[in-house]
Order: sequence, then structure tokens, then C-alpha cells
Amino acid sequence: MPRMKLTLEYDGGPFQGWQRQENGPSVQAALEAAMGALEPGPHTVQGAGRTDAGVHATGQVAHLDTGRDWDPFRLAEALNWHLRPAPVAVLAAERVADGFHARFDAIGRRYTYRIVARRAPLVLERGRAWRVHGPLDAEAMRAGAAHLVGRHDFTTFRAAQCQAQSPVKSLDKIVIEEIHTATGQEIRLHFAARSFLHNQVRSLVGTLERVGSRRWLPERIRDALAARDRAACGPVAPPQGLALTHVIYPEVPQ
Amino acid sequence: MPRMKLTLEYDGGPFQGWQRQENGPSVQAALEAAMGALEPGPHTVQGAGRTDAGVHATGQVAHLDTGRDWDPFRLAEALNWHLRPAPVAVLAAERVADGFHARFDAIGRRYTYRIVARRAPLVLERGRAWRVHGPLDAEAMRAGAAHLVGRHDFTTFRAAQCQAQSPVKSLDKIVIEEIHTATGQEIRLHFAARSFLHNQVRSLVGTLERVGSRRWLPERIRDALAARDRAACGPVAPPQGLALTHVIYPEVPQ
Repeated sequence: MPRMKLTLEYDGGPFQGWQRQENGPSVQAALEAAMGALEPGPHTVQGAGRTDAGVHATGQVAHLDTGRDWDPFRLAEALNWHLRPAPVAVLAAERVADGFHARFDAIGRRYTYRIVARRAPLVLERGRAWRVHGPLDAEAMRAGAAHLVGRHDFTTFRAAQCQAQSPVKSLDKIVIEEIHTATGQEIRLHFAARSFLHNQVRSLVGTLERVGSRRWLPERIRDALAARDRAACGPVAPPQGLALTHVIYPEVPQ
Repeated sequence: MPRMKLTLEYDGGPFQGWQRQENGPSVQAALEAAMGALEPGPHTVQGAGRTDAGVHATGQVAHLDTGRDWDPFRLAEALNWHLRPAPVAVLAAERVADGFHARFDAIGRRYTYRIVARRAPLVLERGRAWRVHGPLDAEAMRAGAAHLVGRHDFTTFRAAQCQAQSPVKSLDKIVIEEIHTATGQEIRLHFAARSFLHNQVRSLVGTLERVGSRRWLPERIRDALAARDRAACGPVAPPQGLALTHVIYPEVPQ
């Protein structure tokens, strides 16, 4: 059974999340159904990150085993044909070693969260960003974020239902980009880590928004982290601003 | 009757276009209905540009007369409330002189057209760009566009049903921006003129795409323009890539 690696884009809006669910559509099930139209199943598509309901991806990675030895380009085209009209696209497919595992082999994940600060409701970016009234103080957000980078116990910023064995994670980088627009601002928060806890990025963003809107001082982030208490977290930011943008694997010697 | 100027964003997808129609929804009618929820009508909202079905705006301008002397901020908020769930937003409202006319006073209009060149269908940008297989040669497109800038008879690039009295227009600028993405390219074409003929931008973009995909040499644009013949035009680019971004008025002395 040849193993294929897929790079995926999807609109999380209509899905219950990446993972196959008893009730409701999932990205994983949409891909498995598309593969089922090409070859008799059952098929299992294993993703690198289990994005939540409403969370998007521009660079999710998954693997699956195929019966035939597909040309990767043709497999991508055929899957895209059968995925329609679901908002999921295979951006690239490649043959990988039989032992490759999209989730366990990943050594880095990148997420971007978009906040648009303006009065008017979002129209063209509806479902693609979190709209706040703003304005947001990007410098204060950067000062707050500086307390979060590094190896910490992130219990404060972790969902109650998080299944990770340990709340200790290394957060490698938070880059906060500010874009001035005709009607306000857009803030893009870029997160890099080997892996994240459940709801970690949205918990961090919701808390950093408190700092940006000057309801919290940047130092309160440090205290919230030190508290190791879910109750010290700010509100969890809504899913539609979040996208999984990259999954990183070790370079494979050719 | 105080006159108000509105700056508007909309998703053209669900509309028959800007202009009120007998059959089907229009942006103009959506705004007039929202105003009707605030004050007894009838109301007429006059737009600067009559965008076609499916064409978006991030900076359309319109004017309307109100019965009450509204605070502009409150008027914008109230209209946005009543516009829901239509994908139309009032970005700004301001009081203007009684003689102000959104269409006839405009001295400049700016449009941006987005082409995404990649194999996979669009997902997150679905309905926001024209997807072509590409790749596109941006330098060749710039060479082709150079023939179009200036004062010309644009009969070749004008819809049969265009109502303008003359096909002669001055096209002030075409800026072609190339953005490299993980999966291909995005080409953004920015157009500036005092005014445009019906379908002019989409006719120009469809023709420039022929050059970018190397099916036409850049010089063929010059010949197509000189032909003054609709049959010399390339295909008209689809509406979902186009957005009216700015309408420019003379500075008013305070």
C-alpha cells in the first residue's frame, strides 16, 4: 500500500472540525469519502493537527495509504474533483516512505490568527477573521506575548478537555504583525511551536486581545501564566480567525 | 433634507449588481430597505459606480438624503444593523453639502482584480478571485498593459450594452503586482481612471491573462486596441475577481 502525503486547504466554517465525528461533517470524513470514490475502502486519512470546529487550514498535512500506485498529481486532481462542493482542496500530493506519519513525524506547526479592528461588521472577510471594535495596541500585545515565549506550563491556556499528557510546551515564537487599513487595523498573530495544547492558540489570542484593547496590562499575561489556572485565562478567541498554515517535518535524506 | 455620503463594502456574489432591478436582489435595494427601516421612504441611494453582478466593493461611495439630521456615526451603525444578514456594510458616513453627487462629482475610480494561478480549486478565496491554472508571466502582462495606459478609444474593451456616450477614456494607471504563494502565484491588477466603460476592467483583465499565459504576445494588445472592434478582445474575466476599491472626489475647501 503506497503511502501518500497530502497538503490541504479548507474552510473550517461548515465542519465540526478536522476529526471524524458521529454527528456532523468533518474534513477527515470529506477526504475519506473522496478517496472512497476512487478506490474501494475503508480509507483512513490521518491529519497532523486536529483543528477545531470552524478553524481553517491553508497548510494542513495528512497521510493515507492507497491501493494503486497513483501518480501524485493525478491523485490530487481526482480528490479535488470528488471533494466538490465541500470547501476542501488538495494543494499537493507526494509519495512518502511507508513509515511516514503526518502527526507523529511533525516537528513544527504554524498557526496564524487574524483580528480585524473596525466598527463595521465584516463582509468580504466574514468567517475569515475575528472582528473587534478596537483599536488595538500592537506594541502592548507584543510586550504581553514576550512573557509567553519559551518553555512553560500552559495550564492556564489549555482547554479543560485537552488530552495532552503534559501541559508543559515550548512556544518558539509569536510574531504580531499590524496592518493599517482604510477603516481600521488588522492584527495578525503568527505562532510557532513543535505542538500546541487543545485551544492553546485561541486562549492566547483572546488573552492578548485584552492587552491590545488596554483592559489588561501586559504584565498580567505573566501572572496568568504563572497561575497555572484556567480561570486566569482571558476569553477564548472565536475559531474563524484561526488557520493552521504550515506543518514541518525533518528533511529526509534522498 | 440633509445629504449623507456613505462608504460601502459588499460581497457582490448574491446580488444582481449595484443597481436596483425588477428581478433579483441588488446592493442599492438592500441599502434603501435598510434606510426604510429607519425613516419612512421612499429612499434613493445613488452610487458612484454601477458594479455588475458578482463584482465586489471595498470602497464604493453613495449618497442619500435623510429626513432627520442624523449623527453620521449613529446612521452608519443603524444601517449596518438593518442590513444584516445581507453582505453589505457601511464603513463610514459623513454629512456632505446638499449638492454633492456620488456619481457625477467623482473624479477618480480605482478597481483591483485578483487572479490566483494554481492547480487546486479555491477554497478560502472562493468567490474572491479568478483561479487560472497558470503560471502567469507578470512581466509580459506589464508589457501588454503599457499599451493600454493613456487616452484611447476603448471600443474593443467595452460591453455591447455599454451606455457611455463615447468610447474614448483616459486610463491613468495599471499596476500589476505579483505575489508568490506556497502553491502558485497571485496577480493583482490595480486600475486607475476618472471613469470606466461598462465591462472595461474585466475585458482588459481577460485579455491581459492571455498575455500572462503566453497565448498572446504583449504587442497583440496594441493591435487589439487599435482595431476598435469588440471581436479583437480576449475573453471577459469573471466578476468574482473584481472589486471597486476607491472613489475619489475633489478636496472640498473647509
